[in-house]
Amino acid sequence: MSSPVRVLAFCGSLRHGSYNAAALDAAIELAPAGMAIERAEIGDFPLYNQDVQAAGFPAAVERVAAQLRAADAVLFATPEYNYSVPGVLKNAIDWLSRLPDSPFSGKAAAVLGASPGNIGTARAQYHLRQIGVFLNLRFLNKPEVMIGQAAQRFQDGKLSDEATREHLQKLLVALVDLAAPR
Amino acid sequence: MSSPVRVLAFCGSLRHGSYNAAALDAAIELAPAGMAIERAEIGDFPLYNQDVQAAGFPAAVERVAAQLRAADAVLFATPEYNYSVPGVLKNAIDWLSRLPDSPFSGKAAAVLGASPGNIGTARAQYHLRQIGVFLNLRFLNKPEVMIGQAAQRFQDGKLSDEATREHLQKLLVALVDLAAPR
Amino acid sequence: MSSPVRVLAFCGSLRHGSYNAAALDAAIELAPAGMAIERAEIGDFPLYNQDVQAAGFPAAVERVAAQLRAADAVLFATPEYNYSVPGVLKNAIDWLSRLPDSPFSGKAAAVLGASPGNIGTARAQYHLRQIGVFLNLRFLNKPEVMIGQAAQRFQDGKLSDEATREHLQKLLVALVDLAAPR
Amino acid sequence: MSSPVRVLAFCGSLRHGSYNAAALDAAIELAPAGMAIERAEIGDFPLYNQDVQAAGFPAAVERVAAQLRAADAVLFATPEYNYSVPGVLKNAIDWLSRLPDSPFSGKAAAVLGASPGNIGTARAQYHLRQIGVFLNLRFLNKPEVMIGQAAQRFQDGKLSDEATREHLQKLLVALVDLAAPR
Repeated sequence: MSSPVRVLAFCGSLRHGSYNAAALDAAIELAPAGMAIERAEIGDFPLYNQDVQAAGFPAAVERVAAQLRAADAVLFATPEYNYSVPGVLKNAIDWLSRLPDSPFSGKAAAVLGASPGNIGTARAQYHLRQIGVFLNLRFLNKPEVMIGQAAQRFQDGKLSDEATREHLQKLLVALVDLAAPR
Repeated sequence: MSSPVRVLAFCGSLRHGSYNAAALDAAIELAPAGMAIERAEIGDFPLYNQDVQAAGFPAAVERVAAQLRAADAVLFATPEYNYSVPGVLKNAIDWLSRLPDSPFSGKAAAVLGASPGNIGTARAQYHLRQIGVFLNLRFLNKPEVMIGQAAQRFQDGKLSDEATREHLQKLLVALVDLAAPR
Repeated sequence: MSSPVRVLAFCGSLRHGSYNAAALDAAIELAPAGMAIERAEIGDFPLYNQDVQAAGFPAAVERVAAQLRAADAVLFATPEYNYSVPGVLKNAIDWLSRLPDSPFSGKAAAVLGASPGNIGTARAQYHLRQIGVFLNLRFLNKPEVMIGQAAQRFQDGKLSDEATREHLQKLLVALVDLAAPR
Repeated sequence: MSSPVRVLAFCGSLRHGSYNAAALDAAIELAPAGMAIERAEIGDFPLYNQDVQAAGFPAAVERVAAQLRAADAVLFATPEYNYSVPGVLKNAIDWLSRLPDSPFSGKAAAVLGASPGNIGTARAQYHLRQIGVFLNLRFLNKPEVMIGQAAQRFQDGKLSDEATREHLQKLLVALVDLAAPR
């Protein structure tokens, strides 16, 4: 029996009750056999500063770095702030990208996002994909999971819309396949 | 006599000795008559969290918000981290964009950036311009100031390259014109 | 009495019965007092080739160039093909951008788009805005007109959805204001 | 012995003496063992029009479609026009993307570009990568081949700069690896 595909999940919102955190909850529930999803906590990262880095990576960064090194794939759940990736998420990436062993490099990756409007975080997702070129992430192209009109798709803090749940599950299945060793 | 165009300057790098901070120093030196440039300190902003916001904007955010409300224009000096805007700068924008009076809206804006490679932060600058559509910033199109090969253009912590200084000054002159009331 | 703001409108779809052509029809109907919208025909442009240009701009390009020089503002109606601007529209821009007098430069501009899905051509519109930085177009930030679910908003070849028509009219009013001489 | 990786190459410039065409010539010379590069001719494609498509794909499109179906990977050589992909190249993609069997889907892909300035077509390349998400191309992340200051790197219509040639060869080797069946 092969070992499971380990996925490290980043959430771009720190808000309790975030749609994107709830979408990650759903992903964990819906994870197919052979996938184990773990969360990265990034809310205690300091703002990136190269002078701070020179004195050593902060403990919070090292903690997530260890998770990232142990992971086979990365899953981003991102809101869209100001037509781009949240600073919170970008700050985490900026820290982790400086690790000398480049733990993002070569990993499979996928992105999902939820937002109140129709766009469903598309603008943030394409910025994240460009970031992924530098990080050398192997981003899944399809399915794209852009959950618009979030107020109608989440209930009581859970992703309740069945069609969206099925779509999300397809993304997870595709990510297992992408992450599997060649 | 008309009052000067007040410009609030944001630097995306917190590093002491940052090329982009040095480029802002040069901008302050080169500011044409009728322009006053002031710096925004964003290094003490907490990571954006809507739950924190609900309890009141942090003092650091309110401090910069007051500067922003008093400004006629915004100038961004941005490094490029991972092919996009630094999380530090995006985090500051994310906070300030939540202020109920939308103090970015309608202001003139310009961007400059310095980086070690050839690209001169172009990728970060176009992401920032997309962010500006949401913020309703009126971004200057030209001249674009992308200072590549920074190690050759800065000496002893100063922007020393004369052609680059002249190019930067043209940006400042164009920004005064863009910011002037119609 | 001041002369009207003359707007040159480009449609990225050549299809008879195109949603975007129909949205332009609606814009012409809804044009506020003081605005005159004219169409640019770009379907007979050859594919851009600098060797052809060296022998003289094609007559079709010169025809639209004359319209563009006489215009105060530009309005793009763009479908989204493959997550970007249609080649047809980009090809027209590529030709017109080579004119030695840069007739796009400094003009006010706005973009609208219609598509069958939820995104409403957002991805194409942000690519077009980046193109506008080079062309030195002064793009309107807001309102953004992204007409998703087009099949529900157009009937019998006309933009029938009343809320969308009002939103489009706001864009036109804002464009008049942006185009007015300072 | 395994069959070679067949690569279909698209050039975004139709100019005789194009830097990008010359860069493709160099790619063909430098192709590693196990790679065969063939050119797609796109200069005789009509402008995309869905009404024309409804009457049948033009012969020129069918000709390239057949090449594309037979290919394992795609290589784009793109100039940057107006901070994006040339209309000529986008028009070819728009046609080919409409083929009912989606011949781009799942193929490995890489991009290179040459331009007179410092940016080396970076802006065009990231737009093309976003297009690739829709097409479901598996784009190589690295190495990125952005040949700036082209006038210094090409001589007598050939890519003469040795460091650039080596860099290009690394891209080809990586593309063979990406295209190889899992």
